[in-house]
Amino acid sequence: MIKVGIVGGTGYTGVELLRILASHPQAEVTVITSRAEAGRQVSELFPNLRGHYDLAFSEPSKEVLLECDVIFFATPHGVAQAMMAELIEGGARVIDLSADFRIRDIATWEKWYGQKHGCPDLVASAVYGLPEVNREKIKSAQLIACPGCYPTSIQLGFLPLLEKGLIDVSSLIANSASGTTGAGKQASVPNLFSEASDSFKAYGAAGHRHLPEIEQGLVDIGGEHANGLSLTFVPHLLPTIRGIHSTLYAKLKGDAGDLQALYEQRYANEPFVDVLPKGDFPQTRTVKSTNMCRISVIEPQERGTVVIMSVIDNLTKGASGQGVQNMNIMFGLDENMGMSSPAILP
Amino acid sequence: MIKVGIVGGTGYTGVELLRILASHPQAEVTVITSRAEAGRQVSELFPNLRGHYDLAFSEPSKEVLLECDVIFFATPHGVAQAMMAELIEGGARVIDLSADFRIRDIATWEKWYGQKHGCPDLVASAVYGLPEVNREKIKSAQLIACPGCYPTSIQLGFLPLLEKGLIDVSSLIANSASGTTGAGKQASVPNLFSEASDSFKAYGAAGHRHLPEIEQGLVDIGGEHANGLSLTFVPHLLPTIRGIHSTLYAKLKGDAGDLQALYEQRYANEPFVDVLPKGDFPQTRTVKSTNMCRISVIEPQERGTVVIMSVIDNLTKGASGQGVQNMNIMFGLDENMGMSSPAILP
Amino acid sequence: MIKVGIVGGTGYTGVELLRILASHPQAEVTVITSRAEAGRQVSELFPNLRGHYDLAFSEPSKEVLLECDVIFFATPHGVAQAMMAELIEGGARVIDLSADFRIRDIATWEKWYGQKHGCPDLVASAVYGLPEVNREKIKSAQLIACPGCYPTSIQLGFLPLLEKGLIDVSSLIANSASGTTGAGKQASVPNLFSEASDSFKAYGAAGHRHLPEIEQGLVDIGGEHANGLSLTFVPHLLPTIRGIHSTLYAKLKGDAGDLQALYEQRYANEPFVDVLPKGDFPQTRTVKSTNMCRISVIEPQERGTVVIMSVIDNLTKGASGQGVQNMNIMFGLDENMGMSSPAILP
Amino acid sequence: MIKVGIVGGTGYTGVELLRILASHPQAEVTVITSRAEAGRQVSELFPNLRGHYDLAFSEPSKEVLLECDVIFFATPHGVAQAMMAELIEGGARVIDLSADFRIRDIATWEKWYGQKHGCPDLVASAVYGLPEVNREKIKSAQLIACPGCYPTSIQLGFLPLLEKGLIDVSSLIANSASGTTGAGKQASVPNLFSEASDSFKAYGAAGHRHLPEIEQGLVDIGGEHANGLSLTFVPHLLPTIRGIHSTLYAKLKGDAGDLQALYEQRYANEPFVDVLPKGDFPQTRTVKSTNMCRISVIEPQERGTVVIMSVIDNLTKGASGQGVQNMNIMFGLDENMGMSSPAILP
Repeated sequence: MIKVGIVGGTGYTGVELLRILASHPQAEVTVITSRAEAGRQVSELFPNLRGHYDLAFSEPSKEVLLECDVIFFATPHGVAQAMMAELIEGGARVIDLSADFRIRDIATWEKWYGQKHGCPDLVASAVYGLPEVNREKIKSAQLIACPGCYPTSIQLGFLPLLEKGLIDVSSLIANSASGTTGAGKQASVPNLFSEASDSFKAYGAAGHRHLPEIEQGLVDIGGEHANGLSLTFVPHLLPTIRGIHSTLYAKLKGDAGDLQALYEQRYANEPFVDVLPKGDFPQTRTVKSTNMCRISVIEPQERGTVVIMSVIDNLTKGASGQGVQNMNIMFGLDENMGMSSPAILP
Repeated sequence: MIKVGIVGGTGYTGVELLRILASHPQAEVTVITSRAEAGRQVSELFPNLRGHYDLAFSEPSKEVLLECDVIFFATPHGVAQAMMAELIEGGARVIDLSADFRIRDIATWEKWYGQKHGCPDLVASAVYGLPEVNREKIKSAQLIACPGCYPTSIQLGFLPLLEKGLIDVSSLIANSASGTTGAGKQASVPNLFSEASDSFKAYGAAGHRHLPEIEQGLVDIGGEHANGLSLTFVPHLLPTIRGIHSTLYAKLKGDAGDLQALYEQRYANEPFVDVLPKGDFPQTRTVKSTNMCRISVIEPQERGTVVIMSVIDNLTKGASGQGVQNMNIMFGLDENMGMSSPAILP
Repeated sequence: MIKVGIVGGTGYTGVELLRILASHPQAEVTVITSRAEAGRQVSELFPNLRGHYDLAFSEPSKEVLLECDVIFFATPHGVAQAMMAELIEGGARVIDLSADFRIRDIATWEKWYGQKHGCPDLVASAVYGLPEVNREKIKSAQLIACPGCYPTSIQLGFLPLLEKGLIDVSSLIANSASGTTGAGKQASVPNLFSEASDSFKAYGAAGHRHLPEIEQGLVDIGGEHANGLSLTFVPHLLPTIRGIHSTLYAKLKGDAGDLQALYEQRYANEPFVDVLPKGDFPQTRTVKSTNMCRISVIEPQERGTVVIMSVIDNLTKGASGQGVQNMNIMFGLDENMGMSSPAILP
Repeated sequence: MIKVGIVGGTGYTGVELLRILASHPQAEVTVITSRAEAGRQVSELFPNLRGHYDLAFSEPSKEVLLECDVIFFATPHGVAQAMMAELIEGGARVIDLSADFRIRDIATWEKWYGQKHGCPDLVASAVYGLPEVNREKIKSAQLIACPGCYPTSIQLGFLPLLEKGLIDVSSLIANSASGTTGAGKQASVPNLFSEASDSFKAYGAAGHRHLPEIEQGLVDIGGEHANGLSLTFVPHLLPTIRGIHSTLYAKLKGDAGDLQALYEQRYANEPFVDVLPKGDFPQTRTVKSTNMCRISVIEPQERGTVVIMSVIDNLTKGASGQGVQNMNIMFGLDENMGMSSPAILP
């Protein structure tokens, strides 16, 4: 059994890790930390876990964490940076669900996150944990920077076109929408049911922290095809609990051939990317609680603009599930171990 | 592997059976019937099942069904009656999720369901599939009448008090609320999102079909303590997808002792009944997609009226999950096989 | 024009007052106070009011408030008590939407609200602002204690039966459910969309602050018929923005006669109580944004238990709308002035 | 009083007309037709109208309709065509909320709506009822083709930029989302609460019927600036009852100047278009039940792509409210008569 430690497990990515790992046949959560909730049973904070865990939150301790085979950070940005050096030095393998090690350019990170980076030396060694792009590097990685939720849905959506250089990268558009769990478990007036229900709005259109991560990822995917890449990214807040839906737009450079076949072939062997039959469009509910990304591609009216729809569960493929997928790859397990159940529907 | 047949699998209890059985290590769905959808892949109708089933709907056929080890009926009332005699005669073991064999008094059934019963001879042999009451009989049963959703939540709520004769049974009250999946997958104006969202209402208060089933079950549980039992049952429609919440009221006969201990002890060995700590009240979301029933009991202000809250997922413990629980018991398997994952939360 | 002052207008009852009064032909909001938001335009805080108000929040000031013809308190409990004496002394007419002056027994108030009452001398002079009971007293009142939301729905539901002494008052039951705006606009984890959506639960069943208010009101209504009155009150949290639905249960003392006629006659002249035709049950959405209370009464199966369903909008008839109704009565206006529009539906 | 007739008033645009006109001081609904519901009180079908109308549905009759001062069609496409010739000949003034007379090119209409046009001769005389563009023509029009919901939100969003020729029209993008009332009141499985709640999806991306209407409108607005105009339009289904949110993307041709000032000036005198302060983005809930369109404009990161967000209530500014706005203009009334109340919030 893989001994798993979770740092900062009181939020939504924490409980999602606990939920997934409760059904994982080869992993066991042996320690979960929280300064605020130290001493409290996890099943007391998360009533869905009653009967599944006999485990209490504890104060974070380097020694205890280093006894784990793998450590997840389910913390706000800034926290993993502060502890990472000593854990890596101690030989730990770490999967960071936060944004701390995703962006390679330190100045860019510091600009968008508004603070000094606490561990710039380790950024270069971190592997960006998008298995569909970096599977080989993940196998031997010591430090995984797990992708953000919007970035996952957008990169997987553009990937087949970008790799082949079929689109004009100078004016890509990503129109995305996220359920309210994307904002985490912090109490806030705008995320009250009374405020967010039965409504819809854009936010962060002037500049969202995920923009530099997405552009970096798209450039990595596109390589030489990505020169001059520029993305307009507008996130929206959905009155749903989970789910990210990205509608992507790009101009085709010329005759792009059979787009449906392109996507089906590229993702034929990916356990967690499902290209829908032509004419079907993905619904967020069909991936709820799963690690699946469902994708459609279409060129409406054959007018030269391609539209891709991509859906994921922001807490699963967009965070904790992708983290477990990375863990499975790191430990040589079946990639979908612990995550093979269908979505709940309806 | 247990070969499972499903009759009428295009509705919500059908897809819920498919979802649960996709993760069941000892059972495999080998046939699923639907006249309307014959020939169509189940994953085409239910996109959450893409990648989980290579199975098409087929026309119902006695011969094919008799090759199964167990047959589920996920049909509207009236359908199972018409096919049951020949299946039972052919040696099949059947779990009927519909109301056809739940009520022992044929005249009562015919009055509430407004039609002639198509198979009255088999009613007496059917076992009412509430494991917390009838576990022993279920083991050897050939025909299981799986309880309704409201009846499950209400019977499990009153059970410990009724068995001990602690409440005045002459004026029991069950105030219940169900998510919209309780109405099935039929197109109807009142169940449109536009009509049911952001609203709440009672319905069927003059007389709901579940009333005679609930009263029969309560009388069975209470035995001599249930003389003169009368229930007022008011169901309500919740703007949620799944979930039943029953708030039950009864007058205590005298000093009932420690209600919390009574419930905890009665359900100590039940895998799917969870009595919450004193002061906690159950939320429907904590049982979503699971077979769990969560219960609280309280005597507000010590005024002699006991209040019980009981929640289940109407499609799982209220239908298909309870069906699988019955199947597990019938085949000597662990009762929670295939249903051991925690609820999704949030 | 009636000059209206609002103390503490940043919450949901505040914006609801502003919304209603924006369409009131005889009243004008001339001052609205908030220490936290002083100087900010109301339309900046409440974007639905853009174009309707050119008014900024100001620091509360006795002098400025005393220039108003009527002052509404839309504050948490405890605030109105602290300012009331000087306002009343200054001749102000006040409509308090909070709980400060609703309960006549000071000790009871202090027990349930957990603090010393700040103005016990004025409690006896306050008129409980339920027009269907106290219309005459309201006309000349100087201080109105506007009823709570649950209390309004429950009192109007039981009223016709209580007045006539037709029910056994020793074990009344009120099973109520409220939308999330009932909890106000405070940031809190349990009221996040992620937590409250797609779920349902009871809360406060051990004892809710509205219980003593409701019982006091029912005793006032029942008079001699209310000896020994005892209510079990269980509130629930609905995944809706607005709306209260109360399902009330009582044992009939004997032959109660024509319940439908009783309710229709009692409320025939009430502008804001609508008794539905027999067989119809009220939906919360049909009263959304209106001051209407819709009621049904039924004796299911003629078994001696009467069931009443009563719905209101918690922010309108349950708070601000009822406040304006009181104001209209106090100033001799048509009772429904400013509140004559139908509900939005769907 | 203006005598108003409504043809086909049983759907959502019908009840929205009735709701608005109930508060209109200069108009009165004197006849409302429905073959299916003839003889039934409107308040029986729409319980929010109880107490507001003493009016029953009647069989459509040319004679009765011709007694009205204005006739609204709130019917599916195809119906108005069949009755229009005789009504126009009889001198009626008609406001058609359906798509029958919106598209000037008959062949285009017939292609997208899949049927022969029933009244091609009158198409040329119909005025497209978008007041912000055609106010003068509306004043004297006999037949108004009221714009669709998506078209209204998209045209008002692009209008200021298009009029000035500031954007590259060859690849406009409209990413829109609508609440479920956009699909009308027909019973259908995909619009059940159980199916549409807590989910999000695109639909009609291969070609939605509103596309030719939108492009025609944009070309009319842009004039010479609109040569070669091409729009990619992707509608999505929101889990909200009402509301349309359009996020529009276009490439700026060069330095476009102060976009905020451009929008504020263009709409300074429009009673139903509200340009939000810079940095604010519109929420659909702030226009719910109102005829308002709220708009924001931004050039993210100053990268040459302009983003416009535009929200309306699909049943009000997107249908019935815009119809009443047209009526007010036609009869020389204040344009916002009957529609001056703020939105409900929260």
